Amino acid sequence: MKTAIVIGVGPDRGLGARLCKRFAADGLKVIVAGRTLSALQAVADDIAKAGGTAVPFVADTTKESDIAALFDAAGENLDLAIYNAGNNTPGKIIEMEADYFEQAWRVVCFGGFLFGREAVRRMVPKKTGTLLFTGASASLRGRSGYGAFNSSKAGLRTLAQAMAKEYAGDGIHVGHVVVDGAIAGDKIFTRFPDAAGREDSLIDIEGIVDAFAFLYRQPERAWSFELDVRTSKEKW
Amino acid sequence: MKTAIVIGVGPDRGLGARLCKRFAADGLKVIVAGRTLSALQAVADDIAKAGGTAVPFVADTTKESDIAALFDAAGENLDLAIYNAGNNTPGKIIEMEADYFEQAWRVVCFGGFLFGREAVRRMVPKKTGTLLFTGASASLRGRSGYGAFNSSKAGLRTLAQAMAKEYAGDGIHVGHVVVDGAIAGDKIFTRFPDAAGREDSLIDIEGIVDAFAFLYRQPERAWSFELDVRTSKEKW
Amino acid sequence: MKTAIVIGVGPDRGLGARLCKRFAADGLKVIVAGRTLSALQAVADDIAKAGGTAVPFVADTTKESDIAALFDAAGENLDLAIYNAGNNTPGKIIEMEADYFEQAWRVVCFGGFLFGREAVRRMVPKKTGTLLFTGASASLRGRSGYGAFNSSKAGLRTLAQAMAKEYAGDGIHVGHVVVDGAIAGDKIFTRFPDAAGREDSLIDIEGIVDAFAFLYRQPERAWSFELDVRTSKEKW
Amino acid sequence: MKTAIVIGVGPDRGLGARLCKRFAADGLKVIVAGRTLSALQAVADDIAKAGGTAVPFVADTTKESDIAALFDAAGENLDLAIYNAGNNTPGKIIEMEADYFEQAWRVVCFGGFLFGREAVRRMVPKKTGTLLFTGASASLRGRSGYGAFNSSKAGLRTLAQAMAKEYAGDGIHVGHVVVDGAIAGDKIFTRFPDAAGREDSLIDIEGIVDAFAFLYRQPERAWSFELDVRTSKEKW
Repeated sequence: MKTAIVIGVGPDRGLGARLCKRFAADGLKVIVAGRTLSALQAVADDIAKAGGTAVPFVADTTKESDIAALFDAAGENLDLAIYNAGNNTPGKIIEMEADYFEQAWRVVCFGGFLFGREAVRRMVPKKTGTLLFTGASASLRGRSGYGAFNSSKAGLRTLAQAMAKEYAGDGIHVGHVVVDGAIAGDKIFTRFPDAAGREDSLIDIEGIVDAFAFLYRQPERAWSFELDVRTSKEKW
Repeated sequence: MKTAIVIGVGPDRGLGARLCKRFAADGLKVIVAGRTLSALQAVADDIAKAGGTAVPFVADTTKESDIAALFDAAGENLDLAIYNAGNNTPGKIIEMEADYFEQAWRVVCFGGFLFGREAVRRMVPKKTGTLLFTGASASLRGRSGYGAFNSSKAGLRTLAQAMAKEYAGDGIHVGHVVVDGAIAGDKIFTRFPDAAGREDSLIDIEGIVDAFAFLYRQPERAWSFELDVRTSKEKW
Repeated sequence: MKTAIVIGVGPDRGLGARLCKRFAADGLKVIVAGRTLSALQAVADDIAKAGGTAVPFVADTTKESDIAALFDAAGENLDLAIYNAGNNTPGKIIEMEADYFEQAWRVVCFGGFLFGREAVRRMVPKKTGTLLFTGASASLRGRSGYGAFNSSKAGLRTLAQAMAKEYAGDGIHVGHVVVDGAIAGDKIFTRFPDAAGREDSLIDIEGIVDAFAFLYRQPERAWSFELDVRTSKEKW
Repeated sequence: MKTAIVIGVGPDRGLGARLCKRFAADGLKVIVAGRTLSALQAVADDIAKAGGTAVPFVADTTKESDIAALFDAAGENLDLAIYNAGNNTPGKIIEMEADYFEQAWRVVCFGGFLFGREAVRRMVPKKTGTLLFTGASASLRGRSGYGAFNSSKAGLRTLAQAMAKEYAGDGIHVGHVVVDGAIAGDKIFTRFPDAAGREDSLIDIEGIVDAFAFLYRQPERAWSFELDVRTSKEKW
């Protein structure tokens, strides 16, 4: 049974959880990874109820040993690894604590390095595997009020692009999904309860999941590195 | 029955022909458009034999009246329009005839304008439809020896991007597929018979077709404008 | 005496006129080219009064023979050629005449090809020369309401980039100045008389001219292809 | 007397040293900052001999307290701050130590954040000042074998872009110079003694310094964020 790791899984309606459910429904065993066991367990339980296979795994994406253990847990059938960790970290540079800037990088970019490195260490010997990263429009350009987020996301994207070129010859497909706008997921509904009334301006999570699934299914002679996803209402 | 127009259809193994066959197999009526009736008829016949519906239509993409007639022929059920016309036009600027530069633009970019304009004229009133363009890595940057091709392709891409933003609010999805490298299609095998021996360095046409099909299926709250497609052997 | 050609010269306060005056002040003979003799003559007269050397030359940038004659007139000492022709051409694609789209391309991009080609034809044999193009933020991305302008400007920029790579080895420096925003020049004051009151949001023309002069002075071992220019008030 | 800080100053023939000498020659007091006192002192002595004013200042760009002290030392007349720290850090991701990846980021990007933050803290209250960063072609795209360098440089560039937008309204000009290729400086001659014989393929340092000087002199109504610099021999 092919195995997928998805890290950055939170509550049920978030992108991480939906990625897990989709790939489980598609027949993969899914390692459901994140920081909060209860959330991971809930996702894994849902998958089990639906007839799929899932294992919750608590891991801090910024800790080298956690990430190594996560990939060890996935075992030999690892075929797909998705790095979905990272939060938006707004704030003006002039008043920003150094720690805040560093943590933004640590979760978004350094974690992506640790995760990506462990993935290729397992995939390159088998000459196959797919490694996908969640990006944002913030990955593409700097914007006032978002320096920390922009910097960490651009660092992750460029790392992913370097890895895509570095490991394509080894049969490893590296991709990057640019999510442009707010997602109709848990985060937005928790923070902005009014968001429920304007869902047509929020990106459909299943549509984002489709993009990941599409990249995963591509044949080696027709790989994409990147695609963008947004609603028809988004200004860009 | 939903109808698709594909323009830039040549011999059977080319991208245009395969796009027609895929969307016919997916249940759309396909208007098979290009300059050479025999080639169009062959594709339409193949589709009919396979149980699909296809109509050959001879049109010169650089002629306003041809493109208008083409869209008239498609009728009210038009749901998808694909602009796949255009050839690579190598050559150094210093020795290039003005006519050659102009023709490169006329086929790649001006034809794309005429086609895109007719598409939105039919789709906007219905508030739905998908308009896709075939791009290339040449669309993204200039390169010595390819000034004419680069210029025309960049002009097309930027037009497509403007249209994507201009008509998203009307429910029209505009997309652009960046084909990065040589395609394992008729053109390459005709010009370079040796290409048959190195197919793993040529892009799998069905994989490109998958990309168009993926864009066509996206829900309005999760549209992509652009994705790139290349083989794992491609240097980029 | 080194000679410069500047095409796209209109009234006195415009960018074209200021480029002429600057390079004349810097000791070059300037061929002042554009469509309206009276405007060209006024600029040439001003230059002569200030002790410089300038020759007005009426040329339509879209006519091959005009551009060839222009470069013939410049003679053997041609050292700098600046393509500053082209107007903004707003409008939605759905209601745009084909002719309008074509004219936008013809003035901005096809004229740039004719001009660039004649420039390298004269410069390459001497293994020296500078060829500069006026760009815009519109050159970099598509935007609703600006499809024709975007397409033509992106086509010009990518052509310039291809030429920069194609002729660097021949000692020809090709550059592209991205003017991001409205210029404090004739056009804006004529169309929007109120603009005079908000000059701090309009780009200082002399600052743009500085950018051209900077590119022209660069040593062969430190050439720039592109730089952007905007006011501190511009949102980008 | 206006004051400049340049950090990332090493031996005499490097970019950092030349930046110091140029701005001292242009009449600024220069704070010569880096890790090795002897190198800083040599540069400061040269400047003094030439009649300029320079103060060596030992600082580790990754230490918050060092950077704060550096800016305190610059005093009230600070008008220009240049972040030139950072080394190329080649290596494949699969075999890279986490520490190596982190250090690449710490020197290139985190140091740039600390430096940029202190700069705007001093400049914003005065509503004037220029903050410049040294970039590379690596800042713009990922490349096999350069994942760590690419990631850190892209993170720095995007931070710089966010800051350019965030502080333009406060009169602060933020710029980024993309050095595309090897510099004819100390590093290259020390590592590759043969480089002396092929100087025409190495970027002229004074030409890079010209780019910084040009950005520094721009009027507020004609600021550039970015320009690229390369030799005519560079393939790009």
